[in-house]
Amino acid sequence: MPRPTEDELIARYFAPLAGAGGLSLRDDAALLTPRPGHDLVLTTDAVVAGVHYFPDDPPASIACKALSVNLSDLAAKGAEPRGFLLTLALSDDWTEAWLAGFCTGLSEAAALASCPLLGGDTVRAGGPTLLSITAFGEVPSGTMVQRSTARIGDRLLVSGSIGDAALGLKLRQNPSAVWGDDLSIPVRAALIDRYLHPRARLPLAPTLRAHARAAMDVSDGLVGDLAKMMRATHLSAEVEIEAIPLSDAARAALAVEPDLLDTALTGGDDYEILCAADPAEVPALRVAAARAGVPLCEIGTVTEGGAPPVFRTADGHVRRFHSGSFSHF
Amino acid sequence: MPRPTEDELIARYFAPLAGAGGLSLRDDAALLTPRPGHDLVLTTDAVVAGVHYFPDDPPASIACKALSVNLSDLAAKGAEPRGFLLTLALSDDWTEAWLAGFCTGLSEAAALASCPLLGGDTVRAGGPTLLSITAFGEVPSGTMVQRSTARIGDRLLVSGSIGDAALGLKLRQNPSAVWGDDLSIPVRAALIDRYLHPRARLPLAPTLRAHARAAMDVSDGLVGDLAKMMRATHLSAEVEIEAIPLSDAARAALAVEPDLLDTALTGGDDYEILCAADPAEVPALRVAAARAGVPLCEIGTVTEGGAPPVFRTADGHVRRFHSGSFSHF
Repeated sequence: MPRPTEDELIARYFAPLAGAGGLSLRDDAALLTPRPGHDLVLTTDAVVAGVHYFPDDPPASIACKALSVNLSDLAAKGAEPRGFLLTLALSDDWTEAWLAGFCTGLSEAAALASCPLLGGDTVRAGGPTLLSITAFGEVPSGTMVQRSTARIGDRLLVSGSIGDAALGLKLRQNPSAVWGDDLSIPVRAALIDRYLHPRARLPLAPTLRAHARAAMDVSDGLVGDLAKMMRATHLSAEVEIEAIPLSDAARAALAVEPDLLDTALTGGDDYEILCAADPAEVPALRVAAARAGVPLCEIGTVTEGGAPPVFRTADGHVRRFHSGSFSHF
Repeated sequence: MPRPTEDELIARYFAPLAGAGGLSLRDDAALLTPRPGHDLVLTTDAVVAGVHYFPDDPPASIACKALSVNLSDLAAKGAEPRGFLLTLALSDDWTEAWLAGFCTGLSEAAALASCPLLGGDTVRAGGPTLLSITAFGEVPSGTMVQRSTARIGDRLLVSGSIGDAALGLKLRQNPSAVWGDDLSIPVRAALIDRYLHPRARLPLAPTLRAHARAAMDVSDGLVGDLAKMMRATHLSAEVEIEAIPLSDAARAALAVEPDLLDTALTGGDDYEILCAADPAEVPALRVAAARAGVPLCEIGTVTEGGAPPVFRTADGHVRRFHSGSFSHF
C-alpha cells in the first residue's frame, strides 16, 4: 500500500486538530492575534527519539511529552495557551499506526490545555524521529513572568514534587535495577508515568503573574535549573534539601537507595515550576496555588553573590551533587 | 577541546542575533505583540541535510535557505516579518566552524529581512542536521492574503522566474551532466545560486495585500503548487506555457536540452509568488510590483471545474508533466 502524501496526512490526521487560526491547515500560514491589551509569549522545544524519549514509548505519550514541555514553559511565564505549530520529522520506518496513536495523544493533550494546532510541517528526518513544537501563550501586556527578576531575600518555591521523572527514567532504562525490585508495582508505575506523561502546571499561570517575582520551569534538574535562574540575576541561593517536595513514590525509592537523591535533584524532566517571591507575597501565593490545585513548597532563599546555590541538609552540612544539570545536547 | 554547552552556544553564537522580544535569549520564552490593528501571521518550515540541502553546502547558504523558505511564506501572505524562532538539531559531527558559518549566514539573512531571532532550541539530532524555523509576520487586521480565495476569471501571475533552482539542483547533483557542459560558467553559477540562495519576495507583500485575491509561494514546483492552489478553491486553471517567466540562464539550459522544461516547471525551490487577481486589478498589481522591484508575469486564468490545471503550448496543445510536484516527504 503506498504511503499517504503529506497533503493526505494533513487532511487525515492533523486537520481534525486544527483551531480557528489554523485555517483548516490548508494555507501556507496561520493567523493568531492576542486579545487587545495582551502580549503573545512564544516558546519552542524539540524532542528527539533516542535522546529525549525512547523510540518504543507509546506514540500518544510521545505526543503528550512534545506538547507538554512547551506548555510548561508557557505556564512558568504566567501565560495561557493559545495554540501551537508542529514540525514532525519522521524516521524512515514510520507507520500509519504510529502516526494515528501520536495524533490521538496530541489531540488529548491539546484539548486538555485548550491549545489547538495551528499549523506545521512534515518532513523526512533521514534519522530518528524529531518533534519540534512552537507554542503560543497570552499574558496581559507587560505581565510575563521573567526568569531573571528575582531579588535578594526572595523566597524560592517549587510546585508539585521533584525527581519522580528522573527516577522513572532510571527504571525505564534499566527495569532490572536492584533498587527497583524493592518497590511495589504501583510505585514503579507512578515514577515511570511521571517520565512518560509530564503535566504542564498551566493552572498556576495566573497565580504566578499575580504573586511571583520570577519563574522558570524545572526541565533539566532542580539543581541545574536553580543555578541557571540565579546566574540570570547574578545572585545565589540557599536551599534546605529536606524542604524539597518529594512524592511518596520518590521517598519509597530513596528509602531503598539513598544515593538516588542525586538523580532526583539533578535528573530532569520534572516540568514543575520554580519561582521566587517577595516573602510578603508568599502566603497569598501559596493560597492561590492551593486554590488552583497545585501545591507550592518553600525550599529556600535568594542570597547575594554569584556563587552556585548551596544545598544544605537538616544538620547544616552542604551537599554537593555529581552532575549539576542534565544536558540533552 | 570540550564542546561548548548549549548555554555557551547561545551566548556565543545566537544571542548576538537576538531582537528585542528575544530577551537576550536568556529566558524560557520570547515576547511578541503585533502593533494595534494588526494580525500575526505564523509559519513553520523545516529543512533537513540530505533531504532539502546537501550536507556540504556552505553553512551560511543553509542558514539563508532555512530562513528564506519561511520568509517566502510570509511574503505570499502579504505579511511583513517580525522575527523567528529556530530549532537547531545538530548531527553528531557538527563543528564550531560550521556553526560560526551558519550564524553568519543567518545573521545576514535576518538583517536583510528585518526579521530578528527571538529564541529557539538546540538539540542532538541523532541523525542528519535539521533546522526548523517558525517565522512571524504582521498584516493589518483581516488582510492576510489567503490561498483559497481565487475566483473564476481571475488572472494568474507569477513573480520573477521559474525553474532556475530546479535546474541548479540538477547541476549540483550531477556536475558532469551532458547538458551542463554546453552552458557557460556564469549560467551554471546563476542556476546553482538560485538553488542555494532563495530570496523571499518580501518587497511584494504590500502589493499582494492591496491587489491580489489569493496567493501562495511556489516551493514545490509551479505545476504542483498551482494544482494545490486550485484544489483549495475547487477550481481549475488554463496556463500558457510560453508566458511562464524564465530567466536567461534557464532559457540557455532549455536550448541545450528542451526536456528540462519538465524539471523547470515541476522541480521546486523557486520561492517565487503565485497569485490570482481580478483582471481589473492586474494593471495596478503589475505597476506596484514593478515599483517594488519584482516583475510579475501573467501566465493564465482561473477556470471552473475541479480538474487539474491545463498547460498549453503556443500552438494550443496540452502538455502533461511527468511529476506533478516535488515532494520532500
